[in-house]
Amino acid sequence: MNLRRFRTPRTVVSAHCDLPCGVYDPAQARIEAESVKAVCEKYQASDDPEFRTRALIIKEQRAELVKHHLWVLWTDYFKAPHFEKYPQLHTLFNEATKLAGAGGAKGSADPEVADRLLAKIAEISDIFWETKKA
Amino acid sequence: MNLRRFRTPRTVVSAHCDLPCGVYDPAQARIEAESVKAVCEKYQASDDPEFRTRALIIKEQRAELVKHHLWVLWTDYFKAPHFEKYPQLHTLFNEATKLAGAGGAKGSADPEVADRLLAKIAEISDIFWETKKA
Amino acid sequence: MNLRRFRTPRTVVSAHCDLPCGVYDPAQARIEAESVKAVCEKYQASDDPEFRTRALIIKEQRAELVKHHLWVLWTDYFKAPHFEKYPQLHTLFNEATKLAGAGGAKGSADPEVADRLLAKIAEISDIFWETKKA
Amino acid sequence: MNLRRFRTPRTVVSAHCDLPCGVYDPAQARIEAESVKAVCEKYQASDDPEFRTRALIIKEQRAELVKHHLWVLWTDYFKAPHFEKYPQLHTLFNEATKLAGAGGAKGSADPEVADRLLAKIAEISDIFWETKKA
Amino acid sequence: MNLRRFRTPRTVVSAHCDLPCGVYDPAQARIEAESVKAVCEKYQASDDPEFRTRALIIKEQRAELVKHHLWVLWTDYFKAPHFEKYPQLHTLFNEATKLAGAGGAKGSADPEVADRLLAKIAEISDIFWETKKA
Amino acid sequence: MNLRRFRTPRTVVSAHCDLPCGVYDPAQARIEAESVKAVCEKYQASDDPEFRTRALIIKEQRAELVKHHLWVLWTDYFKAPHFEKYPQLHTLFNEATKLAGAGGAKGSADPEVADRLLAKIAEISDIFWETKKA
Repeated sequence: MNLRRFRTPRTVVSAHCDLPCGVYDPAQARIEAESVKAVCEKYQASDDPEFRTRALIIKEQRAELVKHHLWVLWTDYFKAPHFEKYPQLHTLFNEATKLAGAGGAKGSADPEVADRLLAKIAEISDIFWETKKA
Repeated sequence: MNLRRFRTPRTVVSAHCDLPCGVYDPAQARIEAESVKAVCEKYQASDDPEFRTRALIIKEQRAELVKHHLWVLWTDYFKAPHFEKYPQLHTLFNEATKLAGAGGAKGSADPEVADRLLAKIAEISDIFWETKKA
Repeated sequence: MNLRRFRTPRTVVSAHCDLPCGVYDPAQARIEAESVKAVCEKYQASDDPEFRTRALIIKEQRAELVKHHLWVLWTDYFKAPHFEKYPQLHTLFNEATKLAGAGGAKGSADPEVADRLLAKIAEISDIFWETKKA
Repeated sequence: MNLRRFRTPRTVVSAHCDLPCGVYDPAQARIEAESVKAVCEKYQASDDPEFRTRALIIKEQRAELVKHHLWVLWTDYFKAPHFEKYPQLHTLFNEATKLAGAGGAKGSADPEVADRLLAKIAEISDIFWETKKA
Repeated sequence: MNLRRFRTPRTVVSAHCDLPCGVYDPAQARIEAESVKAVCEKYQASDDPEFRTRALIIKEQRAELVKHHLWVLWTDYFKAPHFEKYPQLHTLFNEATKLAGAGGAKGSADPEVADRLLAKIAEISDIFWETKKA
Repeated sequence: MNLRRFRTPRTVVSAHCDLPCGVYDPAQARIEAESVKAVCEKYQASDDPEFRTRALIIKEQRAELVKHHLWVLWTDYFKAPHFEKYPQLHTLFNEATKLAGAGGAKGSADPEVADRLLAKIAEISDIFWETKKA
């Protein structure tokens, strides 16, 4: 069994269940956002109205999951000292969740919008893993 | 705690579904938080272990709904100009959702903790209705 | 439709979680129904097929929430003496939930149908608050 | 309790999704109520606190499903002519859903309470299948 | 397709909640699949774009429930000795859940696809009731 | 922005939404299982009855998510050629989902049981990433 596959950064962590269990991982939001992007690409590539309707149904669900996973990180993982050290963090999360919502990935089927969402999640992920190393 | 804060102003409004439909109302978070408080009181007043377990199951669900309704307001209703005008708004929402979570109403069965949550929601509600009048 | 019907009386109350916590409030059904109406209006005003599909997805969810909140009131809040005093109550709830379902707000994107749903909820709300004063 | 009541008649039918698809079947409520009863029996037979807590968590969910399936039948399947022909139908459903809730199967871990719930569902099932034959 | 396959044998049973309560019944998957089929038929018979979108939304949900109920049977009801006695069982469940998913009932609005799903569920049901008699 | 953080193996992939979007990742099941393990450890370390009840409520939810994510991989990602190449795959998934359920992580608060679940998920993950390289 190759455990290295599960290596993300050095000090493996996570937290997300609000016990809290202490297991958080921005990969949860990122995977759903990748799904949103893939759905957009398949939507654009299809002209079957049934398929396109299904794509919009599913994109709505996946984008909602992105919002949820990000909200959990913002409220449950990040604490006052983090917000002091990273003063942009509130705005970053607010923009990222907006980008997952009606003004972004929910309201648009453009893969480029999903890309902007992924970039925001990557910014959050960078900060997340920095705080883990500290 | 000032209950008048919850008074809905004259011109009733709301918005919350991420179409967006434009119908938002902090009463949704407030009603669930009142439920959390009532559950805490009934929990404290009972010594029936079955009832107390049920109370904790239900409190967990209701507190999660409080978090969800607040997150929706923070991401979907409030816009950049609001955050400029009310610089405390990010912190207020972050603290309110933390107060609904493991460090607050989920982690505690003390009605006084639920009261603090209700007070935070009332602060948010005040700002919400101010922005509606503007 | 008489909006004053939605005015919450002086002594605010509620109950809805089936502990039961004792916190019930018809505002929960009303807010979702207002959302349904706003979605219908935005649906009618748009000719963007993606937006219209999203509107139908969301209207389906919101109308389901209306049904749920009404069912909770009917089963959990109202007791035998209420049904004796208000013999129309069963029919009222049955019609209101039908109006939220396939034969009403789910099956139609006409804001006028949503208005009829709101009027039914207002009738229920009036009775609810009367029983609270008693 | 007469188990034959649950026998599905010759011409199998159903309807329940609020399209509506026209497929309704009281078996959905009955199966969940049987689960509630079995959970009660296992709860009573155990003295393991972890198992008993799990039993209460699960009973809460299953009883909620009973309520939901019954509400769907009451609102979506039964129409005005049925309520005229079976004047007891409103009360029957109201009592059945109350029996699934806090005052019944949710609030009690007594298998006898679950039996009363099953009996009510059987009464509903009888009427349901009568209307199908008509 | 042999509808008699769905006849529930004399001694009614079930189990499905992962306590486990011991109450399982393939009827849960079958009822949802019948709903999927009825939705397909209504979809094909309609040319109202709003209705057709609603049909696809609902079909997606019902097909997901089919998958869920089948997964529960496969993991929670069937044990190692069953898989030895019925070596085709893994493949049967894998094919049935695929038939409920994107490559089957979710991806298609053809009632014939839903019929194939119902036939697979009937095969599973036959084996299920055989193991109950044993 | 450090994109390498998101690198899992070389050819990044996933699929899980049943459009299908083609984005699957065993990390989803693994993260929830890590949560289950952390919850078990915190449960064992605590003697606060409220905390322990909350831990069981949350463990039940997280273990259910493990089952769901694994079922999705088994039905939606893996295809007939995979099952031919890895004849143990059906049994592996069946055992893994059983280990997440009542006979494993749901039924036990022993971190060692959660470890066995994590080991099974790692086996599945190894095969998953092998098929991605092929």
